[in-house]
Amino acid sequence: MVEVSQSVEQLTNAEGEEQAELFDEMLEEAEPGTVALLLESLPLDERYERWSQVDSDERIAVLDLMRADPRNGILDEMPEAELDLLFSQISPEDLIEWSDTLSDAMTERALSQMGERQRQHYDRYDQYSENEIGRYAEHQFLALNLTSTVSQAQRFFRRIKLDCNDHVFLLDDDDKYIGSVRRHDVFRAAPEATLESLLWEDSRSILADASLIEAAEAIEHSNELEIAVVDTSGIMIGRMTLRTATALVREHYEAQLMATAGMDEDDDLFAPITVGARRRAVWLGINLLTAFLASATIGLFENVLEKVVALAVLMPIVASMGGIAGSQSLTLMIRGMAMGQISSGNVMSLLKNELGIGILNGVLWATVIGLIAGYWFNDPIMGTVIGAAILINMAVAAIAGVMVPMILQKMNQDAALSGSVILTTVTDVVGFFCFLGLASILYLY
Amino acid sequence: MVEVSQSVEQLTNAEGEEQAELFDEMLEEAEPGTVALLLESLPLDERYERWSQVDSDERIAVLDLMRADPRNGILDEMPEAELDLLFSQISPEDLIEWSDTLSDAMTERALSQMGERQRQHYDRYDQYSENEIGRYAEHQFLALNLTSTVSQAQRFFRRIKLDCNDHVFLLDDDDKYIGSVRRHDVFRAAPEATLESLLWEDSRSILADASLIEAAEAIEHSNELEIAVVDTSGIMIGRMTLRTATALVREHYEAQLMATAGMDEDDDLFAPITVGARRRAVWLGINLLTAFLASATIGLFENVLEKVVALAVLMPIVASMGGIAGSQSLTLMIRGMAMGQISSGNVMSLLKNELGIGILNGVLWATVIGLIAGYWFNDPIMGTVIGAAILINMAVAAIAGVMVPMILQKMNQDAALSGSVILTTVTDVVGFFCFLGLASILYLY
Repeated sequence: MVEVSQSVEQLTNAEGEEQAELFDEMLEEAEPGTVALLLESLPLDERYERWSQVDSDERIAVLDLMRADPRNGILDEMPEAELDLLFSQISPEDLIEWSDTLSDAMTERALSQMGERQRQHYDRYDQYSENEIGRYAEHQFLALNLTSTVSQAQRFFRRIKLDCNDHVFLLDDDDKYIGSVRRHDVFRAAPEATLESLLWEDSRSILADASLIEAAEAIEHSNELEIAVVDTSGIMIGRMTLRTATALVREHYEAQLMATAGMDEDDDLFAPITVGARRRAVWLGINLLTAFLASATIGLFENVLEKVVALAVLMPIVASMGGIAGSQSLTLMIRGMAMGQISSGNVMSLLKNELGIGILNGVLWATVIGLIAGYWFNDPIMGTVIGAAILINMAVAAIAGVMVPMILQKMNQDAALSGSVILTTVTDVVGFFCFLGLASILYLY
Repeated sequence: MVEVSQSVEQLTNAEGEEQAELFDEMLEEAEPGTVALLLESLPLDERYERWSQVDSDERIAVLDLMRADPRNGILDEMPEAELDLLFSQISPEDLIEWSDTLSDAMTERALSQMGERQRQHYDRYDQYSENEIGRYAEHQFLALNLTSTVSQAQRFFRRIKLDCNDHVFLLDDDDKYIGSVRRHDVFRAAPEATLESLLWEDSRSILADASLIEAAEAIEHSNELEIAVVDTSGIMIGRMTLRTATALVREHYEAQLMATAGMDEDDDLFAPITVGARRRAVWLGINLLTAFLASATIGLFENVLEKVVALAVLMPIVASMGGIAGSQSLTLMIRGMAMGQISSGNVMSLLKNELGIGILNGVLWATVIGLIAGYWFNDPIMGTVIGAAILINMAVAAIAGVMVPMILQKMNQDAALSGSVILTTVTDVVGFFCFLGLASILYLY
C-alpha cells in the first residue's frame, strides 16, 4: 500500500519520456496487481501510452487485476493484431470473468482465438450466472480416485504447486465428489495406505449455484484453504480458495460503498467525461423525483409560509435531523442483513429498540432545537412547532430505518443500493409535512 | 450464510424452553463463528440466557468472534467465578484484542489470572497501538535456524498443524528474521540438505508498526499464505496470515460503511437504548451544527422569501442535487484513496474530469429543472434562477467532492468518516446562497 501510493506519486508527477522510463523501471519489480493499480491511476491518454510498455506475457495478468471499465477501455484501444495475440493466450477462466462486462463482439473475437477444448470449458462455466460461484470456480485442483494410494498423493503434492492447496479431492469414476484428504494427513501416513483410509469426515463442498458472497463466507468460516465446488449432479467442477474469497469480500464491500452514491465498483477513476456523466445522470434523475416529492409537500403549505417566513429558514433542519437518524438505523440494519442476522423473529425487538433510541434522541434534540429556534425568532410557538416536528420525524425515521430494508428484502431488492433514497424521501416528506402542517394549525387558525 | 440466516430465523422465533432446546441442538453442530452470530442476533435478555448454555471450553472462541460491544456486554453480565474461569484460559493474543475495548478493571482482572510468562507476552504486544499489525500478529509459527536440515523441517511440518502454514521461517541466534523456506520446497528436497540452500529469495517481511490494512494488502497481493512480522531491530515477533487478512479487510470495510452514518463497527445490534442513544447523539449534534449553517444562509434572504414563496418550495431541490452530485465525486475519491491511487500528480486531472462531468450533468439538469419550475409556477424568471443555481451548485459540488477528501487527507483525517458531512454543508450553503441570492437580484431590484 505504502509502496503503491509512493509509486503512484512518482509516476503521476512524471511526464512524457521521463514517465516512460520510470514505468519501465517499475515494471521490472512490480507484481501484476501493482501494475494494474498504477495504470488505473493515470489519465486515459497517459494510461494508453504506458500500456504499450507492458510485456505481452504480462498483459493478461495485469488486465485481470484491473477493474472492468479501465480494462475494457484498454482493450478498445488496442490494435487488432495485438488483441488477437492477447486473446490467443487467455484462459477460459479469465475470459469468463472479463465477459461479464465485455461487448458481445469482443467476447466473440476472444472465443474465436480459443481452441476447441478451451471453448468447451468456457461454455461449461458460462451456464452459471454472474452471481453464482460456479462461474468463477478455479479449474485447477488436485483430484484422485478413492483407491489411489498415499504415495500417489504425495507425488502429486510434490510435483504441482497451486496456491491455497491443502487438500487432495477424492472423486469417483464419474468425477463425482466424494470427499477430501488433507495434505497434512497425506505426509504423515504410510505411503502404501489408500486415500480412502484418510478421508476427512468433516469435508464440505459448496454448490455451484451458491452466491459469491455465500461461497466466500463458507471458506472464511471454515478452517480450510480450499473447498470443492460441485454441480447439482454432484460432479466437482472446480474449487474455491481463501484468496478468491478475500478478493470477493473486497469487491462485495466496494460495490456496496459505491452503490450508496448510485455508482458501480467497475467505474473508472478517469472515465471519459461523457460516459461518466451519462452513468451518474440516472442516479441524479431518481434523486430529482424524490426532491420534487419533497417540494410538492412544501407546496401544500404556501399559505403559512407566506405569513411566517421563518418557517422556510428552519424547515431544512427538521428534514436533515430525520434523515441522519434514519440513516443510522438503516446502516445498522444493512450490516445485520449482510451477516444474515435479521429475521422475522427479531425484527419486532429491533423495531422497539430503534424506536426507543429514536424517541430518546428525539426528545433531546427537540428540546435543544425548540429552545434555540424559540429564542432566535423570539417566538415560543415556533419553538413548539419545530420541537414537535423533530420528535415525530425522528421516531418515524427509526421505524422507516428498520422497515424500509425489511420490505426491500422481501421484494428481493438490494437495501444497500436503494434504501437510503427511499428513507430520505420518507424523512423529507414527513418532516416538511409535520413541521408546516403543525405551523398551519397554530399560526392560521 | 444461508445456514446462518436459517438458524437465526428459527432461533429468534422460538421462545423460552423451546429456544433453549433448539440452541442446545445448534451448539452441537455450529462452529464458534456461527454461535457468535446467533448470539448477536438475540435481544439482550435472551442473549444472556442462551450464553449460559455455551460450554466453558467454547466460550473464548465464541467471544473472540463477536463484535466488541456484544462481547463486553456478556462479560459484564457474567458471575465473577465464571469470569475468572474464563480468563484463566485466555491466551495473550486474544486478551490483547479484547483489551482494545475492555474496561481497565476488566483487563486487570484478566491479567491477574494469567501466568508470569503469558503476562510478559501480553506486555510485549501491548506496546503496539490498535492500528499496528504488531499488536495482532499470530505468535505461533514454524521457525528454525539457518543451519537446520530439511529433515528437521519436514518433521516440523508433519508434527504441527497450523492454519495457513506454508513456510518455515529462518531466524538467527538472536531471533532475527533471515528469510523463509517454502513447504513445497521442503518436501521436494533431499532430507540431509540445509535449509539455507532452500532459502527463498523473494521472501518478504512486514514491519510490526505497519497499519492493519497495509499488512492485509501485503499478504493479499503476494502469492503466499503467511508473512513474517518483524520489529524495528529485525526480530520476528509473529506472522500475518491470509485468513487474518480476510478478516481485517472485512472489518475495515464494515467500519467504513458504519462510519458513513457516524457509527462504529463494534456497535451492537441490540445496544441498550440509553447507550445507543448517547452514541448516536454525537453525530446528530454535528449534523445539527451544519443544518443551522444552512438555515443561517437562508435567513439572509428573508426579504425575497417573503415576496416569492415559491422559492421556499423549490429550494430543497437545489441543495439536494448538489449533495448527490458531490457525493458521487467524493465516493470515487474515497475508493481511489483507499487503494493509494490518488496523488498530487493526478489530482488536477481528476479535478478536470469531475468538473467536466459536473458541468455536463449540471447543464442537463439545470435545463430540465428550469423548464419544470418555469411551467409549474408560470414564471420564466423562476426557471432561470433555479437553472443557474443548479448549474453552479453542481460544478461546485464536483470541486468540493475532489478537494474535501484531499484536504482531509492532508490533515490526517478519515475522509470516509467526515467527508460527507463537510461536503453536504458546502453544497447546502452554496445551493441556498446561489438560489436565493440570484432570486434577490432578479426579483427585488
